[in-house]
Amino acid sequence: MTTPLDGIIVLDLTHVLAGPFCSTILGDLGARVIKIERPVLGDDTREFPPFKQGESAYFAALNAGKQSIALDLKAPADRAIFERLLDRADVVLENYRPGVMERLGYGFEDLRKTHPRLIYGAVSGFGHTGPEAGKPAYDMVVQARGGVMSITGPEGGPPVRVGASVGDIVAGMYLAQGILAALVQRGRTGEGAKVDIAMLDSQLAIQEHSLATTTATGVPPGPTGARHPSITPFSTYRASDGFFVIAAGNDALFAKLAQGLGCPDWVTDPRFASNGARCENVHMLKRLIEAITLEKPRDHWIALMESAGVPTARVQNMAEAIEDPQVKARNMVVPVEQREGGPSFKAAGNPIKMSTLPDRQARGPAPLLDADREAILGWLDAAG
Amino acid sequence: MTTPLDGIIVLDLTHVLAGPFCSTILGDLGARVIKIERPVLGDDTREFPPFKQGESAYFAALNAGKQSIALDLKAPADRAIFERLLDRADVVLENYRPGVMERLGYGFEDLRKTHPRLIYGAVSGFGHTGPEAGKPAYDMVVQARGGVMSITGPEGGPPVRVGASVGDIVAGMYLAQGILAALVQRGRTGEGAKVDIAMLDSQLAIQEHSLATTTATGVPPGPTGARHPSITPFSTYRASDGFFVIAAGNDALFAKLAQGLGCPDWVTDPRFASNGARCENVHMLKRLIEAITLEKPRDHWIALMESAGVPTARVQNMAEAIEDPQVKARNMVVPVEQREGGPSFKAAGNPIKMSTLPDRQARGPAPLLDADREAILGWLDAAG
Repeated sequence: MTTPLDGIIVLDLTHVLAGPFCSTILGDLGARVIKIERPVLGDDTREFPPFKQGESAYFAALNAGKQSIALDLKAPADRAIFERLLDRADVVLENYRPGVMERLGYGFEDLRKTHPRLIYGAVSGFGHTGPEAGKPAYDMVVQARGGVMSITGPEGGPPVRVGASVGDIVAGMYLAQGILAALVQRGRTGEGAKVDIAMLDSQLAIQEHSLATTTATGVPPGPTGARHPSITPFSTYRASDGFFVIAAGNDALFAKLAQGLGCPDWVTDPRFASNGARCENVHMLKRLIEAITLEKPRDHWIALMESAGVPTARVQNMAEAIEDPQVKARNMVVPVEQREGGPSFKAAGNPIKMSTLPDRQARGPAPLLDADREAILGWLDAAG
Repeated sequence: MTTPLDGIIVLDLTHVLAGPFCSTILGDLGARVIKIERPVLGDDTREFPPFKQGESAYFAALNAGKQSIALDLKAPADRAIFERLLDRADVVLENYRPGVMERLGYGFEDLRKTHPRLIYGAVSGFGHTGPEAGKPAYDMVVQARGGVMSITGPEGGPPVRVGASVGDIVAGMYLAQGILAALVQRGRTGEGAKVDIAMLDSQLAIQEHSLATTTATGVPPGPTGARHPSITPFSTYRASDGFFVIAAGNDALFAKLAQGLGCPDWVTDPRFASNGARCENVHMLKRLIEAITLEKPRDHWIALMESAGVPTARVQNMAEAIEDPQVKARNMVVPVEQREGGPSFKAAGNPIKMSTLPDRQARGPAPLLDADREAILGWLDAAG
């Protein structure tokens, strides 16, 4: 089967998270990703804990299946190699501060003259335009400025960050979308494009309800802990051994819940008779529910909710999520192929399941720094 | 300028969030999105608060610029219209439970026979395969099962949900990537594809550090509030009027921070002399920093950090984020065009900035239910 991006060559100059997250997506879709790292140190994440046999599990998960060559883009011999790679490439990705690629002579305006079909993807903290275009950013900086921290955390409590690095990851996903759109477009016009993704922009784009609410009412929402701001009961609840979710989104589901918990009279109790009343008495209702659910473990309540037809879920830690039967059935945690004598790692599977793309049962090995230099040079020579 | 998806027709049968989020992305890239809604009620989010002149701001933000036609896919006359639309479509999106489209006669295997170029995109809670394929899910159900709640929240406290609905949104983004990849592939092979996205899968895919850490060490990480788990100081801090971020990722930045706060001796204090020592004394250091920063407002400290060269940010609520000069310069909050006499709304701008895609200064109007029926039927007739 020919994969969607079969034969597409991606030169990936990015490091850490947003850019490598994007090139993983392109690789999952069939592209060949050549990671171009700085000599000696390589990608910063090679030093991110935890380690196995001196190799970073974090690096391995984000770079499995990619090739690595170390190039100093200021050194003439390495620049010559990079330029031969550019002649073969469909996509180049970079996450330098704006201006750095221009100073190297590889800015988009330079490259479009010599490589009009090349697609140039940039991801940066604040983008390549605007008053703060040049400033550095980190995941937490854009989580803070973009508003997601202000709606995440306990009600009335201090802001917390989203535990997954959505400041980087969402930007990497938008970059992948821009690159794919540019490939569609190039298929029609023959011309490349520049894609300019800002981490801060990407945070605004995921504020589905808070942006609409704030612009319509003038009042920005705050955090609501684990509960839905306008549906009750729709939150986490304590069992004897941990938390689980009850998502009773309407009166019929609330009736099933009340019946299941042995409290059918809740349905006619004026404090709980409508969603509006339940929202007004949300803390009271939570205590009444937990007075029951604290008596037994989560699995008991999950089974009871499922038989009652009330949407539910365990709040799983990552060890539990990895062992979740549905996660396993969907091939969402896969081994990273081991190099001979090297450590074994695991990584997330490909979430894009397509009828025209085999769902791989493992990811290729994570490359040691510069491990593919000879193979890449040989390929360039063979291609002439 | 011809946009990347110029001329692409998307039939969008989805409602609420994940699917409409995907079709917004495709629309931003130039596709024409025809929203096919159930008669009378339409998309559930038409009833989501807040409202202006009886119209939902939430619906408007997610559906601006789309067309609407109401069709009952069980009624012969409406099925005939849907089938005429299928003849013109490039993409169909649905978020029914697995099996519903098959019972309507519009499953992927049916459609591929009659429309081999059609790209079929499905998004569901758990996907179209696996033991729980048929179960319903909500954003919070997959946030809980997929692990993101277990790493989000105050240290040692109860789990909280991510304030933005990443359970839906990330799935919608992966669906957009799959559709775009299928368009690239169809450009080469002439054949369509099915894309099957699960909200739960998508949550696993964004667990960049916790999945790697858990599989490498066996120990799942817990929540760490607003601080980075292994870099100090890298967290939120209290000023007199709110929270701000200090992201001092290495010794040099810590020295600049200490100097800026008037405490140069911190650098040689054995409690804080290295990142490891600072991590061990993270709570002590936080109190020392806040003993200073609580005295003055955020803007004072942001200016001081910036002049010292320490990455920083305000923790902004959505009202502040919308007014952020960089957000404005990047066109990331745009008006939704007003229908005559209709309410005015705003929505997020397009975060995919491309040299080959004009950055629109406004989104098209949000459609009333079935508002485009006549225009769509006229277009079908004109096309023959």
